[in-house]
Amino acid sequence: MIVNCVHIKVKKGLVDRFIEATIVNHKQSLKEPGNLRFDVIQMADDPCQFMLYEAYESEQSAAEHKLTSHYAAWKDIVADYMEEPRKGVRYKILEPDDPSLW
Amino acid sequence: MIVNCVHIKVKKGLVDRFIEATIVNHKQSLKEPGNLRFDVIQMADDPCQFMLYEAYESEQSAAEHKLTSHYAAWKDIVADYMEEPRKGVRYKILEPDDPSLW
Repeated sequence: MIVNCVHIKVKKGLVDRFIEATIVNHKQSLKEPGNLRFDVIQMADDPCQFMLYEAYESEQSAAEHKLTSHYAAWKDIVADYMEEPRKGVRYKILEPDDPSLW
Repeated sequence: MIVNCVHIKVKKGLVDRFIEATIVNHKQSLKEPGNLRFDVIQMADDPCQFMLYEAYESEQSAAEHKLTSHYAAWKDIVADYMEEPRKGVRYKILEPDDPSLW
């Protein structure tokens, strides 16, 4: 099981549109068979900064996410909303080690 | 609902001890009434770097975590294991907005 943390900085004035498009992606991503979580969180000290906390059963499931139509649509919509390129950081899950707790 | 992301860099050679102490903290933290998650994840590209993904029902629940004996014990044990001071970043939860999905 792995987590991909995606750090995103959005241009001022486009935050609401970014959230709207990202909630659509969140809802669709949860339906992927290998997806475990897809949390959307907003930095308390800077409402222009977000993290997507994407957990998958495997590296393959994470790769398959990038082949979905909802990912492609999200990527296109938010491209112009970003202040700088987003950064993904990959993690191995240590706990919870029980897949049913994800 | 809020998330506190705690970023930690551990000294080489002390990673196993850090993981052991942090798993104890993870298991105890999940028992706190206001805790929603306490994930322990290890960076894929650098096994000395970790993130604790701590979700709470409220700011008050997050503050109460820091008053527990298991937090105090963990903090003391891992103090010498850290390469640099840990950094906590606070986030507001946007999705899932349903508390039962946490």
